[in-house]
Amino acid sequence: MLHGNNFIGNERSSAGTLTFKAFNPGKNEELPELFYSATTTEFEKAVLKAKNAYNTYKNISGKEKAGFLRKIADNIEASGSSLIQRVMLETGLTEARLTGERNRTTNQLRLFAGLLEEGSWCEAAIDSALPDRKPAPRPDIRKVLRPIGPVVVFAASNFPLAFSTAGGDTASALAAGCPVIVKAHRYHPGTSEIVATAIIEAAAATGMPDGVFSMLHTIEHSVSQSFVTHPFIKAVGFTGSFTAGKLLYDIAQKRDEPIPVFAEMGSVNPVILLPGKVAQNAKELGEQLASSVTLGAGQFCTNPGIIITMSGAQTNEFKDALSTKIKSLVPETMLNPGIKKAYFDRTNETITEKGARLLAQSDMEEKSVEGRPIIAVVDADKFIANPKLAEEIFGPFSLIIECANPVEMSDVIRSLKGQLTATIMCTDKDVSDFRELIEMIQELAGRILFNGVPTGVEVCHAMQHGGPFPASTDSRFTSVGTGAIKRFVRPVAFQDAPDSYLPDELKNKNPLGIWRLVNGEFSKNEV
Amino acid sequence: MLHGNNFIGNERSSAGTLTFKAFNPGKNEELPELFYSATTTEFEKAVLKAKNAYNTYKNISGKEKAGFLRKIADNIEASGSSLIQRVMLETGLTEARLTGERNRTTNQLRLFAGLLEEGSWCEAAIDSALPDRKPAPRPDIRKVLRPIGPVVVFAASNFPLAFSTAGGDTASALAAGCPVIVKAHRYHPGTSEIVATAIIEAAAATGMPDGVFSMLHTIEHSVSQSFVTHPFIKAVGFTGSFTAGKLLYDIAQKRDEPIPVFAEMGSVNPVILLPGKVAQNAKELGEQLASSVTLGAGQFCTNPGIIITMSGAQTNEFKDALSTKIKSLVPETMLNPGIKKAYFDRTNETITEKGARLLAQSDMEEKSVEGRPIIAVVDADKFIANPKLAEEIFGPFSLIIECANPVEMSDVIRSLKGQLTATIMCTDKDVSDFRELIEMIQELAGRILFNGVPTGVEVCHAMQHGGPFPASTDSRFTSVGTGAIKRFVRPVAFQDAPDSYLPDELKNKNPLGIWRLVNGEFSKNEV
Repeated sequence: MLHGNNFIGNERSSAGTLTFKAFNPGKNEELPELFYSATTTEFEKAVLKAKNAYNTYKNISGKEKAGFLRKIADNIEASGSSLIQRVMLETGLTEARLTGERNRTTNQLRLFAGLLEEGSWCEAAIDSALPDRKPAPRPDIRKVLRPIGPVVVFAASNFPLAFSTAGGDTASALAAGCPVIVKAHRYHPGTSEIVATAIIEAAAATGMPDGVFSMLHTIEHSVSQSFVTHPFIKAVGFTGSFTAGKLLYDIAQKRDEPIPVFAEMGSVNPVILLPGKVAQNAKELGEQLASSVTLGAGQFCTNPGIIITMSGAQTNEFKDALSTKIKSLVPETMLNPGIKKAYFDRTNETITEKGARLLAQSDMEEKSVEGRPIIAVVDADKFIANPKLAEEIFGPFSLIIECANPVEMSDVIRSLKGQLTATIMCTDKDVSDFRELIEMIQELAGRILFNGVPTGVEVCHAMQHGGPFPASTDSRFTSVGTGAIKRFVRPVAFQDAPDSYLPDELKNKNPLGIWRLVNGEFSKNEV
Repeated sequence: MLHGNNFIGNERSSAGTLTFKAFNPGKNEELPELFYSATTTEFEKAVLKAKNAYNTYKNISGKEKAGFLRKIADNIEASGSSLIQRVMLETGLTEARLTGERNRTTNQLRLFAGLLEEGSWCEAAIDSALPDRKPAPRPDIRKVLRPIGPVVVFAASNFPLAFSTAGGDTASALAAGCPVIVKAHRYHPGTSEIVATAIIEAAAATGMPDGVFSMLHTIEHSVSQSFVTHPFIKAVGFTGSFTAGKLLYDIAQKRDEPIPVFAEMGSVNPVILLPGKVAQNAKELGEQLASSVTLGAGQFCTNPGIIITMSGAQTNEFKDALSTKIKSLVPETMLNPGIKKAYFDRTNETITEKGARLLAQSDMEEKSVEGRPIIAVVDADKFIANPKLAEEIFGPFSLIIECANPVEMSDVIRSLKGQLTATIMCTDKDVSDFRELIEMIQELAGRILFNGVPTGVEVCHAMQHGGPFPASTDSRFTSVGTGAIKRFVRPVAFQDAPDSYLPDELKNKNPLGIWRLVNGEFSKNEV
C-alpha cells in the first residue's frame, strides 16, 4: 500500500495541501493513489536533517558506508515483483527492461560498495617533511578527498530505477559521504516511494544517521527551485532536458555561494558511417541502428539521434535495410503524455522543415501515449543551415544526414555541439583514411564508440557519461561509473597534523591498506 | 631592452594606440618604457593561433611536453639578474624574496615535467570486454584524461613570477596539453615580457606549435573581459581579488557555453589559538605570527588575517609579544599605489569600526607606497555582528578576535566563509579537548595546518590551494601542486577502439609503463 507521503529522513510527512496522482501511460489514465506535494517548509526540515546527518555521516568509515549501500541493494531486490509491477504501471516500460534496469541499479550500488571497501578511490597523497631542506624545510603535507556536504538529486523520468531515487547520483553521493535529498520524479512517485522505503530501512538497519536520505515529491516549480538555492546544499545532480538542467544550473550560479550542478542534458549522439564500413556492412548497420534508435521507445540519453553518412549506392542499401526494419517495428508506450506530445510535435516539425524528409516510419500508427518509430533524412548543407535540426528529439527517431563528400562530412561534424557519445562505424582502413575526422569527433564527446551502438551505458570504472556542453554542464565529470563519486568530494590537505588526528586514509601506518601517492610514487607501504 | 609588444605566438604585435608605463613603487614613479595595450583584434589572432596549436599540441607526447617545460625553466634561469632586477623595480619586492620565488617557479615547471615524464597522472582506466557476460556482453571501455582546449590565464600581482606569466596556472595548463594565453599583469609588464620571451623561445627550441603560448598586455577592461567570452576559450585561471575573480566567473557562466573559471580569490586564513598551546607558548606564538603577518608586506593569499583566541592572562602575554614585535618591524614597499591606498583605507576603517581597536602598529610611519604593520583586536560578539570585519585586508594586518569561552569560539568559526587555509595552534591535549571545533574548522578550508603558519605554500603532490567559496570558485581543484593539472582536462572514454587508434596511455602493451586502473585494480601490466 502506497502512503504518498514525503520522506524527511525517518519521518513521513504530508504537511501540504497540494496533491497529485501518478499516471498509467499504457492505459492513458490516472492511477488512484494520492501523493502529497512537498512544501518549502518540509524541504527545509529535510535540509536541516541532512546538515546534521552530514556531521556524523562524513566520518563513517568506507566499510560501514559500503554496508549501507549493499543493504539498499538487498532491500530493492527484496521488494521483488511489487516494485517491478509498479514501475511498469507508471512508465509503460516492459518487465524485461525493468528487471534489467533493477539489476543495473543494484549492481551500481554494489560497485560503489566495493569501491569504498577497497578504499583507494580517495586519492590519498603524502609528501613527507624534509626538515633539513634548504633554504626552508618542507612541512609534512597530506591530502585526501573529503565529502562536500548535502547533495540534491533530481530524478530522471527515463530510468525510473537507475537514474532515479537510488540511481547513480544518489549512489555516488552517498558513497562520497554526502547526505542526499531526492526530488522524486513526478511521473513515477509510487516507484520512488518503494525505493525510498528501501533506502530509509537500509539506513536504519545499518546505523546511519537520521537525515542521511530524504525524498520529497513536489509538483511546484518554486519548491523544486528552492532545492538548489538553500545555502546548506553543496551540489546538485540532474538528468533530464536541456531547458530544465540549464535553468537549475543558472539558479545555482546566481547564489551568493555558487555550487556545482551536474546536469546531464542529453544529446543527439551522432553516428558516423565511414564509407569502407558501409560498403562492407550496409544491411547489418541498418538493422543494428534501427534497434538502437527504437530501444525502450527511443527514450535513452544516448539514443542515436543523427546518422552521418556519404551519399551513394551503398548508403542507399543501408537506408533500405534501416527502413525495412523501422516499418516492421511496432510503436511502444512512451513515459508520459507530455513526452509523447513533444515527440509527435517535434518529429512532425522536422519532417516539414525545409529539406528534411520522411524516409520511413512504422507501418502501424501509434495509439494514445505511444511513439511511432520514424527516420528522416536531410542533405548536409540543409542540416548545417538549420541548427534546429541538430536538437535532440526524445523518442524513437533518427535523422540521416547525407554528405556529398568527406569535406561536407567534416563540416557537419564541426557544426555539432558537445555530445555524450559519438559513434564511428569503420573498417581499419577507414580509421587510417579518416584520421583527422576521427580526431575532430574525439573533441565532440565524452565517449567515442567504434562499431557499436551508443545505447547501453556500462557501469564500470572506465565509463565516461558526460560530454562537452550542452551534453552536460561539466565535461570534467561523469554521472555513470565509479568516477561519478568525484563530483561530490573536494581535496583537503593537512599540514603537520598529529597522526592520531589524521583520517585513516592518511595515517602513517596506512591502516586501510590503500594505494597512496607517497612522495610522488604509488605505494601501499607505511610512511 | 624591453620592446613593450604583445606576443601573439611567435609574432610581436603593437597594433593598438593605447600605451602605458610600468611603475616603480619603491621610488613612487613611473618607469620609462612604453607598453602597448592589446586590442580585441590582437586577442582574436592569439585565440585563432591557440586553437590551431591545440590540434597539434594535444597529441604531443608527455615526454616532449616535459622537454618544453624544462626548457622554459632553463630559459628563465638564464635570464639571470636582469630578470630579478626588473621584477624588483616593478614590484618593490626584495632580491632574496624574488630569487626564492624564481626558484619556486622553475621548480614548479620541472615538477610538472617530471609528472608528464612519469605519466600516470592521466588516470588511465581499462575495463576489458566480457563477451560471454549474460544477459549482455560487456564492451571494452578505456578512459583517459585529455586536454580541454585553449586556456586563458590572468596573472596575479603579488607573485610576479610564481603566479604570473610562467606561474602555476600556465605550467599546469601547458602540462595538461592546453595552449595558454596570458593576460599580463598591468603592474609588472617588463617582468612579463622577459618571462614570455623565455617561453616563446623554449617553444621554438623544442618544436612546439606556434600559438601554444601568447601573452597580451591590456589595460582595457572590455578587452580583458573578451578573453573570457571567446567561444574557443575553454577555461580560465585567475588569482586576485574577490571582485575581479567573481566578475570573470559570472561572465563565463553567462556564455552560451559556460566554462570553468578557476579563481583563487584569497581569504583571511584564520589562525585559531587553543588554550593549552597559548599557555605553553604565548611569546613564541606572538613572534611567529608577527613574522607571518608581515612577510612580503603581508601580500600573500595565505596571510593570517584573523587570529581567534580565548581572553585571559595568557592571551594577554601573546598579545604583548605580538605587539612588541610588530612595533619593531619597519614598513615595507607594497606592490603598487592602488594596493597601498586600499590597505591604508581599509585598516583605518577597521580601527574606526564599532568595537575594533588598534592593538599595535609599527613604530615607524610608512612612506609613499609602504604599508605599515598593524594589529587590531575585537571582541567575538562584535566581530560576528559586523561581517565587514571578516573581509580580507591585503597587507601586513591581522585582527585578533577575543572569545570569552569555547562557545563563542565556535560561533566565530561558524560565522566564517570558505578559506584557503585554517591554522590550529594546539597541544595534543587541545586536539582531544576541542575535537568538535577542529572538525568544524576542517569544513572551512582547503588546507588545515597544525602549529605552523599559512604563508608559504609548498608546491608538491599533496598540496591543496583552493578552499570553499569565496576562497576559490571551485573547491574541488587546487591551483598549486601537481593536482592543478586536473583543472584543464576532461575524461574521454573509448569503447571497442582499435588498439592502434588508442592513445599510448590506453594501448594494450602499456608502452608508457604507467599505472592504470585495470578492471578496478592498479597495475602497470599489459592487458
